[in-house]
Amino acid sequence: MNIDVDTAAADLRAAALAAREASRALARSSHAERQHALRAAARALRAHMPAILDANAIDVAGYEGTPALRDRLRLDEKRVEGMAVGLEEIADLADPLGRVQSEWVRPNGLQFQRISTPIGVIGMIYESRPNVGADAAGLCLASGNAVILRGGSDSFNSAQAIHAAIAEGLREAGLPEAAVQIAPSRDRAFVAAMLRAAGLIDLIIPRGGKGLVTRVQQESRVPVLSHADGLCHTYIHAAADPAMARTILKNAKMRRTDVCGATETLLIDAAVAPGLLPEIVADLAALGCDFRADDRARAILPDLTPAAEGDFSTEWLDKILNVAVVDGVDAAMAHIARHGSEHTEAIITEDAAVAEQFLNGTSSAVVLWNASTQFCDGGEFGFGAEIGIATGRIHARGPVGVEQLTTFRYQVRGSGQVRP
Amino acid sequence: MNIDVDTAAADLRAAALAAREASRALARSSHAERQHALRAAARALRAHMPAILDANAIDVAGYEGTPALRDRLRLDEKRVEGMAVGLEEIADLADPLGRVQSEWVRPNGLQFQRISTPIGVIGMIYESRPNVGADAAGLCLASGNAVILRGGSDSFNSAQAIHAAIAEGLREAGLPEAAVQIAPSRDRAFVAAMLRAAGLIDLIIPRGGKGLVTRVQQESRVPVLSHADGLCHTYIHAAADPAMARTILKNAKMRRTDVCGATETLLIDAAVAPGLLPEIVADLAALGCDFRADDRARAILPDLTPAAEGDFSTEWLDKILNVAVVDGVDAAMAHIARHGSEHTEAIITEDAAVAEQFLNGTSSAVVLWNASTQFCDGGEFGFGAEIGIATGRIHARGPVGVEQLTTFRYQVRGSGQVRP
Repeated sequence: MNIDVDTAAADLRAAALAAREASRALARSSHAERQHALRAAARALRAHMPAILDANAIDVAGYEGTPALRDRLRLDEKRVEGMAVGLEEIADLADPLGRVQSEWVRPNGLQFQRISTPIGVIGMIYESRPNVGADAAGLCLASGNAVILRGGSDSFNSAQAIHAAIAEGLREAGLPEAAVQIAPSRDRAFVAAMLRAAGLIDLIIPRGGKGLVTRVQQESRVPVLSHADGLCHTYIHAAADPAMARTILKNAKMRRTDVCGATETLLIDAAVAPGLLPEIVADLAALGCDFRADDRARAILPDLTPAAEGDFSTEWLDKILNVAVVDGVDAAMAHIARHGSEHTEAIITEDAAVAEQFLNGTSSAVVLWNASTQFCDGGEFGFGAEIGIATGRIHARGPVGVEQLTTFRYQVRGSGQVRP
Repeated sequence: MNIDVDTAAADLRAAALAAREASRALARSSHAERQHALRAAARALRAHMPAILDANAIDVAGYEGTPALRDRLRLDEKRVEGMAVGLEEIADLADPLGRVQSEWVRPNGLQFQRISTPIGVIGMIYESRPNVGADAAGLCLASGNAVILRGGSDSFNSAQAIHAAIAEGLREAGLPEAAVQIAPSRDRAFVAAMLRAAGLIDLIIPRGGKGLVTRVQQESRVPVLSHADGLCHTYIHAAADPAMARTILKNAKMRRTDVCGATETLLIDAAVAPGLLPEIVADLAALGCDFRADDRARAILPDLTPAAEGDFSTEWLDKILNVAVVDGVDAAMAHIARHGSEHTEAIITEDAAVAEQFLNGTSSAVVLWNASTQFCDGGEFGFGAEIGIATGRIHARGPVGVEQLTTFRYQVRGSGQVRP
């Protein structure tokens, strides 16, 4: 065991030092060079199609998980082509580096500029979904960051084959191959080594289920961008347009129930609940949704299943909706503050003043007025691809695209100034 | 011992929950209310002058440290007045909250705004310098953050008395007193509880010596803004103006040797070293500076003390300068990458192209051209006061003023949009 741990730590250290060196070259690289590498990597993914599918077939054959998880692991020509197109779309994004975020001149003549720069070395930890590795490599490369990829061990062969194609793109663009690295073995000790690599890795991004993310959050010595829960609320205010409320609820809960932006809890004002709640419940029940209701909701619809202790803090990711009747926007915001996960919340109302109260009084990363919570997505935000969703308070929040994969530096230009 | 730990954990939890509640009120507060609280706290500091000086006298009487540290602990009317003026200056800063950092509209009509918001609850851990607590409270309040202050145990009485004045300011402005809290005892277990308080505290800011900061960085489960080292370099390029180089070096090394922005290492191009290095060494030696030189520098000035293993990675914070002769900007940047601390570096040259190479190729938080490294300071940046200097890659870098004590939220305004 100690041998594994020591080997993993040594492997990680070697990978991280090479990544650091590569990150310096990336920081000096031009947008055109990074675009070239991304497009060459896309071409290489297509050219390596047979090798990638063969490698994936080995992973799938050896896989013993559920059919749903096997489907996430399985690649076909369409999915590999999708990865290639994804890299090309990332290449088309505006350069997030070298942007002047602010500039000013001091009375002593010193000229200050705050410039966007890469973060450095990112560690990406994800489950057995091969496409996540390609997307992450593309987004890190586009933002000038080196990345160390550690995908689920069940996708080891697929990940190696995809990495080979991306490395070919880097070579073709004259950028260091070490800019995108991959765990050299399935050894889980490599993940532990990544989480201990403060100073070697600048940022860890876990992408996967709550178990993976929570473990990373608890064990990491390196800063982490992540979200463990997406316990999203939709609040129907007394002044909501009933038709809009019904349309949005159907989408927010049922468009996809397995995404982190899906609404898990409906909060509805007592003033409109008697008339509107039965309609919404009927809409969603017709789509196969089940409910967990508080006493006030069951006073209106006695057949609804009573909400048990903890239901309002449960992210179902399923066809289940928590329902609570509240008295106004303050009560709704208080419920969200108590049970929410700082992810995404929506208010539905025609009252602009109340909407502003909600938009400004709710601390979640994304707050919507008269729209579906399922809009919490990098593509829907216009970011192009996203590497994940962040619910922390530091550095990045909401969908994380290339812009939030940067940091900044102050450049100060003088003419011999010394400090008094 | 366990009793202490449990008590400290319970104390911290109670303080953090009250702080979270208070942070919500702060997030909703107006700039005028926060300005009112800061100015009222300044008045209260003056009104409580006798109590504060009495409390400080107890701390000083019981203090057993060095005279230098005792001086940092001691308060007099001038220093308390300085704290009050500091709070008033913070009150005069522009509101960092509610700023629209970016906004855009999507083809589906959704209106996106990225708005600056408070971080939430900040934990401030500092040494026995009472003024640091007042500054931190002021900066957190101005940025809408609640703060839990834990100063050095030797300044316990002083900190309590200062806190009482600030609490009075909060009361007078109608803001919750819990917005600024202070460790209830000297118990060091309270610090450990703060570092474990992920989810309760959003950000830890340690302010003090390397020992304190390093311990916090290593033990904290909460994100940390800090700098452990300020190993700053000044690089004299071959095309430097010799007179400017001499003036800047005197300031960068000797203005104050005990600040993190002081230059610790001089890198000088071989092309100009034979003529210029002896002049610079003479300038600094006349001010009492000692040197640690590499072989190439000693080939020019054989009397210089040879640099020992590790000297080039040592932050002296004293009248000692490391000296190395290098061959051009790439060698200088490589030396900085190997020995630097991501804090502040300067290049002195009349060659604009080389300067840009250095400004863009050095990853430190602050990079200067033809100016003294001692300009790395919130006041000199025009930020007003600073809560510290950050050298991490995430969230904040360089001098941290009120702006970097904020995070952001996306507000999305729609008209019934649902996701396709």
